[in-house]
Amino acid sequence: MNASEFRRRGKEMVDYVANYMEGIEGRQVYPDVEPGYLRPLIPAAAPQEPDTFEDIINDVEKIIMPGVTHWHSPYFFAYFPTASSYPAMLADMLCGAIGCIGFSWAASPACTELETVMMDWLGKMLELPKAFLNEKAGEGGGVIQGSASEATLVALLAARTKVIHRLQAASPELTQAAIMEKLVAYSSDQAHSSVERAGLIGGVKLKAIPSDGNFAMRASALQEALERDKAAGLIPFFTAPCTGTVPALEVCGEPWSLSSWHGSWWGRQMVATLGTTTCCSFDNLLEVGPICNKEDIWLHVDAAYAGSAFICPEFRHLLNGVEFADSFNFNPHKWLLVNFDCSAMWVKKRTDLTGAFRLDPTYLKHSHQDSGLITDYRHWQIPLGRRFRSLKMWFVFRMYGVKGLQAYIRKHVQLSHEFESLVRQDPRFEICVEVILGLVCFRLKGSNKVNEALLQRINSAKKIHLVPCHLRDKFVLRFAICSRTVESAHVQRAWEHIKELAADVLRAERE
Amino acid sequence: MNASEFRRRGKEMVDYVANYMEGIEGRQVYPDVEPGYLRPLIPAAAPQEPDTFEDIINDVEKIIMPGVTHWHSPYFFAYFPTASSYPAMLADMLCGAIGCIGFSWAASPACTELETVMMDWLGKMLELPKAFLNEKAGEGGGVIQGSASEATLVALLAARTKVIHRLQAASPELTQAAIMEKLVAYSSDQAHSSVERAGLIGGVKLKAIPSDGNFAMRASALQEALERDKAAGLIPFFTAPCTGTVPALEVCGEPWSLSSWHGSWWGRQMVATLGTTTCCSFDNLLEVGPICNKEDIWLHVDAAYAGSAFICPEFRHLLNGVEFADSFNFNPHKWLLVNFDCSAMWVKKRTDLTGAFRLDPTYLKHSHQDSGLITDYRHWQIPLGRRFRSLKMWFVFRMYGVKGLQAYIRKHVQLSHEFESLVRQDPRFEICVEVILGLVCFRLKGSNKVNEALLQRINSAKKIHLVPCHLRDKFVLRFAICSRTVESAHVQRAWEHIKELAADVLRAERE
Repeated sequence: MNASEFRRRGKEMVDYVANYMEGIEGRQVYPDVEPGYLRPLIPAAAPQEPDTFEDIINDVEKIIMPGVTHWHSPYFFAYFPTASSYPAMLADMLCGAIGCIGFSWAASPACTELETVMMDWLGKMLELPKAFLNEKAGEGGGVIQGSASEATLVALLAARTKVIHRLQAASPELTQAAIMEKLVAYSSDQAHSSVERAGLIGGVKLKAIPSDGNFAMRASALQEALERDKAAGLIPFFTAPCTGTVPALEVCGEPWSLSSWHGSWWGRQMVATLGTTTCCSFDNLLEVGPICNKEDIWLHVDAAYAGSAFICPEFRHLLNGVEFADSFNFNPHKWLLVNFDCSAMWVKKRTDLTGAFRLDPTYLKHSHQDSGLITDYRHWQIPLGRRFRSLKMWFVFRMYGVKGLQAYIRKHVQLSHEFESLVRQDPRFEICVEVILGLVCFRLKGSNKVNEALLQRINSAKKIHLVPCHLRDKFVLRFAICSRTVESAHVQRAWEHIKELAADVLRAERE
Repeated sequence: MNASEFRRRGKEMVDYVANYMEGIEGRQVYPDVEPGYLRPLIPAAAPQEPDTFEDIINDVEKIIMPGVTHWHSPYFFAYFPTASSYPAMLADMLCGAIGCIGFSWAASPACTELETVMMDWLGKMLELPKAFLNEKAGEGGGVIQGSASEATLVALLAARTKVIHRLQAASPELTQAAIMEKLVAYSSDQAHSSVERAGLIGGVKLKAIPSDGNFAMRASALQEALERDKAAGLIPFFTAPCTGTVPALEVCGEPWSLSSWHGSWWGRQMVATLGTTTCCSFDNLLEVGPICNKEDIWLHVDAAYAGSAFICPEFRHLLNGVEFADSFNFNPHKWLLVNFDCSAMWVKKRTDLTGAFRLDPTYLKHSHQDSGLITDYRHWQIPLGRRFRSLKMWFVFRMYGVKGLQAYIRKHVQLSHEFESLVRQDPRFEICVEVILGLVCFRLKGSNKVNEALLQRINSAKKIHLVPCHLRDKFVLRFAICSRTVESAHVQRAWEHIKELAADVLRAERE
């Protein structure tokens, strides 16, 4: 395919994409296919001779679309949102064309420098403490990671290296293995298996701190664990609270148990249980932070979903306490209209990250990379290669403007409150946790069984798509405002549909 | 921006992209900018009100392009190729529109299933042993990783978990820490810091096996290390040879020392030193593989760059011995026209990967995921989220056909031989390693200093772009065939230019 054919096919693809987005409401949100559906539909091996573009685009509708879960349908209320916007798509086209691999400054200076500045722009939108910004040649700065999981892993590895250096400086006879055996990282018992996974990868113990009645990690519980572990000769070095309490999300029921969605990576939602008036997570960081600082424990704050909301002044207080953190992360690719992947991570000290993959401290002394002008982002992450992802941020921030982005967040929050009020008007239902951002956790008053039956009916009907979670012992339905194009009418229709199915379920139960 | 504005702007962007690609030869391949150039050119914070698309696209030319290293210019001969093709760009547009996050089967069945089948297609193109394929409900299968670094890390973690399980099954009193302290992984002394990095992340020792005169890891050296380490009470568990010898690539000289490109992730090049008639790497895997199998050591074979060539029957013998491997990886995003990122990884036993992040063996027993039909790729990788990257493979494989892809590889190999023969005709120069694929390592006969001066002149003139490497004590220039559009005329012009600059350097030296 040459440039002139690309001009033609590219424009056809632009129309295909626009048609898909405009018509997505008409597509069934969750597919009918069974596992293994695709293999019989396509040849067993690649063709020897080229196929035509017409063949391929026809096959997209015949083979691909029937198996797609339409995350951008306004009837998709599952998991959490994944961002999608036209400006981000335009930027991705440009990113693909430039096609540079930005592992070092020299490999494409614009790729590195735009990222550094965009991370400052975003940090300012969130009113992050200045220590996290790169401008004015500070020690901090931001980087785009592929996912929050990677950000947590990188933070844990940086913390691990730092504590090993510190202890070996004091006691040179200590081996790395002897130290690692004693290291303990902490997260809330409501936190996710991905924190556990980072601990497993890093070869360190991970302990869950029991949360309080509002699902929050509190100072007293953390302090207690620290004292107990230190008395036992262990070395606390890393804490990863969430920016709020996290209802541990699990997917239950067929066919969603097949997908066994372990969700609290996706569940870093700022929610407090019904009845609290202040947000417990707000207390949480302000309580936990000073302890970590005092004890020289790395504090990594993850707000994968909720973080986008902090660009609105009325939600920014939920992030209070981030000033105690060593690293902070959230995903603009969830709720800030920057298509996946774009996970924004900041650190107060760049050298902590760049040193994470080196146990030889002389490395840091000799490296030019921390001159403040030259950034080689490959030292900030697990992979070596990286795309020009900051273009997406630049296009989205400029084409929406901060006000446009704030309006987008507010609209979603308003829609979740609208759904909440519909649920509250129906005495058969209950709201399970206070609705603060774009997620409503609700259920039929009654047994888990009846709620499982309701979810089963909802997802079998496939008019809307939801996933459930467990809040301690309760099976709960999650209604997440996801699509960029979701409007009040969709929420109303979804609720009418849920009510009808609930009536069926309750009738069947009585019979 | 709504769908109708996207139709307009998207088509403008298609033209921008086509213009960029058509005109790339006219752009200076390496930028003139100095570190820190970009920040003064753009505002210190995101705009409150939206900017127009015209503003942004104008700024692309004014602000971004002056800082871009043009990896797809036919005068770019640095590092290794990064793939770029129109079919891949079209597929990426579709991928962005569907915008699903394929962490589990249910999250978008098509995303998972097309990936599984495309990895089988690609495995068949390479004539991988059937054990690596997923079809016919075997135990193996493929997955797209973001980078070869991630593939190596995942393989090492899988191997680590497996050996811990095995030893604990035999001796339940052994703690994980006690085992990890004794684990040793091996790579060639020519291998890259990313293998070392995987070892650091995984918290295990990594030892370099001294390579032979042809830069190859040989059976005798490996066997010797194994015996010595086992006698010392250590536990060998992982070996990561390359598919060939790896000239340890380093970037030297300003401003490339700023980029300090550590290259042998990029350097998994199938090269043997000048003078060998058989490819030593071929011997290498066939020698090293049986030892690993006998000693129950995980064998991970990485062919990041060279792997693409194995679709040509005449190069496939270079992969002989892969049948001994537990895992194999190469990057279609380097040399197979599938835009970054697309790193193809196969394993013989899927459960080894899916168990890598769990130390609890009961997990494997209870999981549904290995039924053979349901694949949840989040268990195969570090991040949770994943894009619909197999669309790129599907579009590229179909629109080129296997024959088209083979022709592409052959053209690049032919161009490297053309450059080689030009170098050989000039008695002032020498070829440093046998040219087998698309890379020519060459230098002026003489001191390192004169070669450093030559490279300095080349990269200051900015008509072409090269990076150097060290082959043991020699400073060597690397001429990598990179661009999809590079032709004989570009290679000829590059050589004329190099010869002129060499004459200047030699004249300056005499004076």
